[in-house]
Amino acid sequence: MENYQPLVIPAADDACATHGFVPCKGGVCAAAGMSAAGVVAGFRHEPGRRDLALVASDDVCVCAGTFTTNQFCAAPVILSRARAAGGHARAMVLNSGNANASTGEPGLENARRSTSLVAEALGCDAEDVLVASTGVIGVQLPFEPYEKGVPAAVAGLGHSPEAAHEAALAVMTTDTHPKEVSFKGEVPQADGSTVTVHVGGFCKGSGMIQPNMATMLSVLSTDAPLSPVAAHAALLAAVRESFNKVTVDSDTSTNDTCVLFATGRAGGETIEEGSVGYETVAAAILGVCNHLAREVASDGEGSTKLVTVNVLGAASQGDADVVARSIANSPLVKTAIFGHDANWGRVAAAAGKCGVEFDQYGVDIDFMDVPVLRAGLPLPMDEDDMLRRFESPEVTIAISLGQGSFSSRIWTCDLTHDYVTINGDYRT
Amino acid sequence: MENYQPLVIPAADDACATHGFVPCKGGVCAAAGMSAAGVVAGFRHEPGRRDLALVASDDVCVCAGTFTTNQFCAAPVILSRARAAGGHARAMVLNSGNANASTGEPGLENARRSTSLVAEALGCDAEDVLVASTGVIGVQLPFEPYEKGVPAAVAGLGHSPEAAHEAALAVMTTDTHPKEVSFKGEVPQADGSTVTVHVGGFCKGSGMIQPNMATMLSVLSTDAPLSPVAAHAALLAAVRESFNKVTVDSDTSTNDTCVLFATGRAGGETIEEGSVGYETVAAAILGVCNHLAREVASDGEGSTKLVTVNVLGAASQGDADVVARSIANSPLVKTAIFGHDANWGRVAAAAGKCGVEFDQYGVDIDFMDVPVLRAGLPLPMDEDDMLRRFESPEVTIAISLGQGSFSSRIWTCDLTHDYVTINGDYRT
Repeated sequence: MENYQPLVIPAADDACATHGFVPCKGGVCAAAGMSAAGVVAGFRHEPGRRDLALVASDDVCVCAGTFTTNQFCAAPVILSRARAAGGHARAMVLNSGNANASTGEPGLENARRSTSLVAEALGCDAEDVLVASTGVIGVQLPFEPYEKGVPAAVAGLGHSPEAAHEAALAVMTTDTHPKEVSFKGEVPQADGSTVTVHVGGFCKGSGMIQPNMATMLSVLSTDAPLSPVAAHAALLAAVRESFNKVTVDSDTSTNDTCVLFATGRAGGETIEEGSVGYETVAAAILGVCNHLAREVASDGEGSTKLVTVNVLGAASQGDADVVARSIANSPLVKTAIFGHDANWGRVAAAAGKCGVEFDQYGVDIDFMDVPVLRAGLPLPMDEDDMLRRFESPEVTIAISLGQGSFSSRIWTCDLTHDYVTINGDYRT
Repeated sequence: MENYQPLVIPAADDACATHGFVPCKGGVCAAAGMSAAGVVAGFRHEPGRRDLALVASDDVCVCAGTFTTNQFCAAPVILSRARAAGGHARAMVLNSGNANASTGEPGLENARRSTSLVAEALGCDAEDVLVASTGVIGVQLPFEPYEKGVPAAVAGLGHSPEAAHEAALAVMTTDTHPKEVSFKGEVPQADGSTVTVHVGGFCKGSGMIQPNMATMLSVLSTDAPLSPVAAHAALLAAVRESFNKVTVDSDTSTNDTCVLFATGRAGGETIEEGSVGYETVAAAILGVCNHLAREVASDGEGSTKLVTVNVLGAASQGDADVVARSIANSPLVKTAIFGHDANWGRVAAAAGKCGVEFDQYGVDIDFMDVPVLRAGLPLPMDEDDMLRRFESPEVTIAISLGQGSFSSRIWTCDLTHDYVTINGDYRT
């Protein structure tokens, strides 16, 4: 019998470690000059559950945002997209429990008023306040929770890790746990010195997850002195490789929002796209996004496994991305993983169905580094060994199309009874 | 309160009734000159379960076929596609229990040998015998069941409704019931007279269903004297509007095959695409395909509902089709229906995510003829009335994009716990 080698998967971009960034405390408040709060405002009917988050910079600072491409976009997306385009902001108010989507002019007016309340309390211009919402679609957002929650959140703003954690808690919907992370590292300067920079953030997301040019709600921050153009470039590049490579259920939300605050409090020279320090800061932002994106896939509604799909040997980047998404969104592949079944036939069928051309007898497939298909034909499988590998919380599928040198990686999760329960029983 | 009217859905094309065709007995044997058999050959390990079907014309006759576009196509698809291209055939042998997919040259040789066995027993050329398989992917097809089953099937060939029914039984996999239908009607001739024609067939299919240019296994027949070109045109047109408008789980099979035999035994003039009788016969074939396609959606793995998605007011046919498929494949829409939840927010989000441009404030949505969204804003809903409507085995969703005059209709089913059970537990 031939000795088949596993496919060689391109190294995962552990962008933070590669650039010497190490984990630190603080989440969205790790960056100097950032404060946060999470309070019980009353958007939700669960007593004591935090449902309003406020994130603020000590002063108006650089800001960049990216938002859903869904044609049905929510009122806060319309408002925040326009304001973030200016490149500066002071704060962002976020709520869970109501998405303020499909709510027309009254919804837009509620979004505007919520930012005015925050602006008054902080003493800034309402144009410098962004807003995001998540929850039920098509129900007018009650305004009373803002009137109760915004003063409490402003009064409670803190620079501590605990404050950041409370904000991360307040945006959760079907998430089973809050999702936050932060790193610190040295950013090189033109004169050869370095400046210590922090990058962190939180996000929420678990269902209606196939972000497209944005993610579910996510607030990131850094104290690196990024210019508005550099902040936008670094954010878009990071989101493209992280949140946009996640799918839970192929359903793109109406409310996807990802915002980056850059306070500049770390000091040092202003960082433009061509600056010495740009690559390092951009990598750290990507590292934060990668961490959060994996958390979203891993916490996909009802999931029991984080699934990484690697496509290799594609004739183009587009081909690699389309095949990866086709496999990651296949209900048959996702239920097979739930059943601990290395069902390469379903992987092959999902790759073959999406319009990308290849020769089926040039295809190789691995499940968790075990070759199961070579040149389109199945290999004998040690079922006991494979079942043991399925005990891991992470499952990796790799497929080489044998057509070229392009590759793509996407994160997803399995499809389980709990997904059906959660979503077949959401309103009742 | 305004009085909102339900969306006006384009009339369903009840092609058979429109052209005066009425149901008759006989399934694939309703057409004069067609015989069938279904026997226990041993592809499956369930005692007494029929797993080999044979369909034959009394003589070599006109034949047309359409097959999966999946790049991973099975050996019988490769063989039958080439043979059907000739426009004539005598018989088709079908098995369940093994798909003969990803089986390489040995798989192709098994497919060839199976047709040779049939040809010898029928006394025809092997080139005039087609083959189709359905079942597990990636396992070599055992040949012994053909050696046992083919002689039994040839000996058992019958022209009766019972024989047709046994063939329909033998191709079932996860189907909960056999799917067959037949109609008869009058086809006009150039001289003003008419000829009585029969059209019928069977199919199987329940999972890995998003046929693309073909369906799961389906064998159709008519005794109308179609030319090869007319048979091919009528089959493609019918499949495009029927089987290709079904999705159970967005997964296109490796084995999709749909074949039409036209025996000509009804008599009358040869029917070309321009003939007086062409439209009538083509409509009857579409009627048969529509019936079978609805059965496939309705019997989707684990389903409790047949779901019809109607998209209206699209700017182009392509836009209408893409939005219809996006809604029909949305796990959130499908689980909502399982939960008897008229969750128009998920329908709106699925319409908005797929790259088709529209103004969200021009969109209307109905659930089962009840307006729930007008001009992008929700209407008050009588929840009790809606729950009563969800008791029906059929659920209809209609959405108008307000952009133009194109429409599309697609059939699907809900996403349930049983789908996860069936597919999370397929091999174990």
